[in-house]
Amino acid sequence: MEVIDYRLMINQSSVIRKMYKNALDRAEQIGYENVFDYSLGNPSVPVPEEFNNEIIRLLTSEDSKHIHEYSPNAGIVEVREAIAKSLNSRFGIDYKSEHIFMTAGATSAIAHSLRCVTKQDDEVIVFAPFFPEYTPYVKLAGCKLKVVEPDIKTFQINFEKLEQLLTPEVTAIIVNSPNNPTGIAYSEETIIKLAKLLENKQKEFNHDIFIISDEPYREISFDNIKIPYIAKYYKNTLTCYSFSKSLSIPGERIGYIAINPECKDADIMVSMCVQISRGLGQNAPASIIQRAIVPILDKTAQLSVYENNMNILYDELIKLGFKCVKPNGTFYLFPQSLEDDANIFCQKATKYDLFLVPGDSFGCCGHFRIAYCVQTEKVKRSIFKFREFVQNEYCNLLNKEQSLILR
Amino acid sequence: MEVIDYRLMINQSSVIRKMYKNALDRAEQIGYENVFDYSLGNPSVPVPEEFNNEIIRLLTSEDSKHIHEYSPNAGIVEVREAIAKSLNSRFGIDYKSEHIFMTAGATSAIAHSLRCVTKQDDEVIVFAPFFPEYTPYVKLAGCKLKVVEPDIKTFQINFEKLEQLLTPEVTAIIVNSPNNPTGIAYSEETIIKLAKLLENKQKEFNHDIFIISDEPYREISFDNIKIPYIAKYYKNTLTCYSFSKSLSIPGERIGYIAINPECKDADIMVSMCVQISRGLGQNAPASIIQRAIVPILDKTAQLSVYENNMNILYDELIKLGFKCVKPNGTFYLFPQSLEDDANIFCQKATKYDLFLVPGDSFGCCGHFRIAYCVQTEKVKRSIFKFREFVQNEYCNLLNKEQSLILR
Repeated sequence: MEVIDYRLMINQSSVIRKMYKNALDRAEQIGYENVFDYSLGNPSVPVPEEFNNEIIRLLTSEDSKHIHEYSPNAGIVEVREAIAKSLNSRFGIDYKSEHIFMTAGATSAIAHSLRCVTKQDDEVIVFAPFFPEYTPYVKLAGCKLKVVEPDIKTFQINFEKLEQLLTPEVTAIIVNSPNNPTGIAYSEETIIKLAKLLENKQKEFNHDIFIISDEPYREISFDNIKIPYIAKYYKNTLTCYSFSKSLSIPGERIGYIAINPECKDADIMVSMCVQISRGLGQNAPASIIQRAIVPILDKTAQLSVYENNMNILYDELIKLGFKCVKPNGTFYLFPQSLEDDANIFCQKATKYDLFLVPGDSFGCCGHFRIAYCVQTEKVKRSIFKFREFVQNEYCNLLNKEQSLILR
Repeated sequence: MEVIDYRLMINQSSVIRKMYKNALDRAEQIGYENVFDYSLGNPSVPVPEEFNNEIIRLLTSEDSKHIHEYSPNAGIVEVREAIAKSLNSRFGIDYKSEHIFMTAGATSAIAHSLRCVTKQDDEVIVFAPFFPEYTPYVKLAGCKLKVVEPDIKTFQINFEKLEQLLTPEVTAIIVNSPNNPTGIAYSEETIIKLAKLLENKQKEFNHDIFIISDEPYREISFDNIKIPYIAKYYKNTLTCYSFSKSLSIPGERIGYIAINPECKDADIMVSMCVQISRGLGQNAPASIIQRAIVPILDKTAQLSVYENNMNILYDELIKLGFKCVKPNGTFYLFPQSLEDDANIFCQKATKYDLFLVPGDSFGCCGHFRIAYCVQTEKVKRSIFKFREFVQNEYCNLLNKEQSLILR
């Protein structure tokens, strides 16, 4: 196993955070309202008021000692039951409370899942472009990360490349659909093909291969499409969920792992997570937050704002000559940059107060991410900045029609 | 490094939890009010109302999006500043916000601290009797646990035994004062002697030795004694704190690590904790809980109840012929059992609806723990049960005077 030196890690800070800091620095000069900060994936719509109301009800109507007491390590049973019931009614699975393990958001869910299904030095596959934190998550779980190159025309799975990397050392695959940073959800066809491939490889290698399905954006879908629920297609699936994005409560650190009841060791996985928690130092998420999500398990924040923002930006970028696969959900766009080096492209954009994140750290060069979880009014104003940016820096790339728009 | 098998760990469930389950099973037969459940360390007094009021104020008066947004990974800066200020005024240290790392309780604080100051296969010393969870904490951090035998007459440090175990492989020592399960706080004399020994050994070994000071019971002290603040006596101290016991909010998972400003690498320790968090899957405790403790940093729940309970039980046990070192704090008593095997002793006690925990799992046989964080009314009623228990099971041990009490 590789020796971890946390000291060395300190200076490898995230490009996203750096760009966010640049935006904040600029805001000090011209005011945050004039900075088009598309760097961070921080929800921009408020939590449904039922959440706040439920906390207030718990604090004012219930026994205070009971409300704040220790949660069982796997989570409060009634909360786990309610989540199982909600998932069953929506996705037609047969979860019981014993299959639900409460976590402090998706980060904690992935940390537990990785340790559940891998052992030291196993290999874990991810698909580029991918959330950059997967790299330390996998490494610090003692495993090796293998990255499947993207199919940049569709951002569906590049199966040719996947098969090359799918060796017997692989015991887990992290899937993230809808995806950060592309906004693309895997089609049912893609998922069926993936499930079939993994089933064949399990037989060939004579060991299990688990999907760790990271689904914080599951509820943010566009054009009324139904995001396929991956556990429905592949038995060995651990679904990692976070309420951060769907309910706009990222600071409250609440999520869960749902173990497919037909998964290998499904009956002991949650007990294993409890053991893993002793090492990770997690004793369940905050009790009051667990209780407060129960009344709104089937609700979301006003997520339609994100689709609206996406459409405004997407239409404009296409008009300006950008190539971009249209998202099915999330609050991200991942267009190709107008020059090969997306870092230079994003650096130039800051001159127009546009703060974008180059795709390199997502494992996909030549692209950039727009996190459009900002006010729609601001998205509209940013359009003029994008026009100015392209006209000034890349006018040679514009065709006649595009030049007309910009005039 | 030892290979961890979480499957094997599942059945090694805690004796405390088992005894608690026995108490609950019995409660189904005779009602919980008739069960003298001294098994769990679950606070029995309510949180100060300012805590609940502050949450309600945040939810009703502040911007909802802001209140629930991501916390920085090390914690909300204003919260860390307030904690530093509170500690400085109470203990005369010079913490800055940069020395405070917010955690989901003491468990998370210890998990981060161990990884900060040790590397794989290092040895970590604990003093018996000790909180049984230290064993998995240390093991799952990749280190080896070494247990210093107790001085059962005082439960201060047994320095002779400590020196035998203090070899160059040791890089961290977990100290827990006031102690679970004995209730004993280390005297200033003990701490000065420990600090001196460690300073000498650091020079001798030419490497740092860190104290991880686990202090969840710091605020629960008896007889108005001042519990010495360990970081004040030894530079390389990481203080791990939890608000679970002092504020009676164990379910809300809130605590911190305070890095002594004079500790080795004090300026980068919190940044290292942030890196460690990426592996542990912790992204700071719940934002609203962080904010809600600020107004009550210098307050506590009504902790005097515990001292009252202790005095009632201690006086009675002494009268009945038990040997017990009188606690300086916490809500635990740790008397010697009336027969060599404390497991048999505690098993017999259940016949009288007394649920006690044998000391074996704390690394100290022949003793038992009473967690008297229960209602005083119940403590008083339990006295009759203790009398009956001793009279029926151990009457041969009673002297004339004691027999008279029991008549």
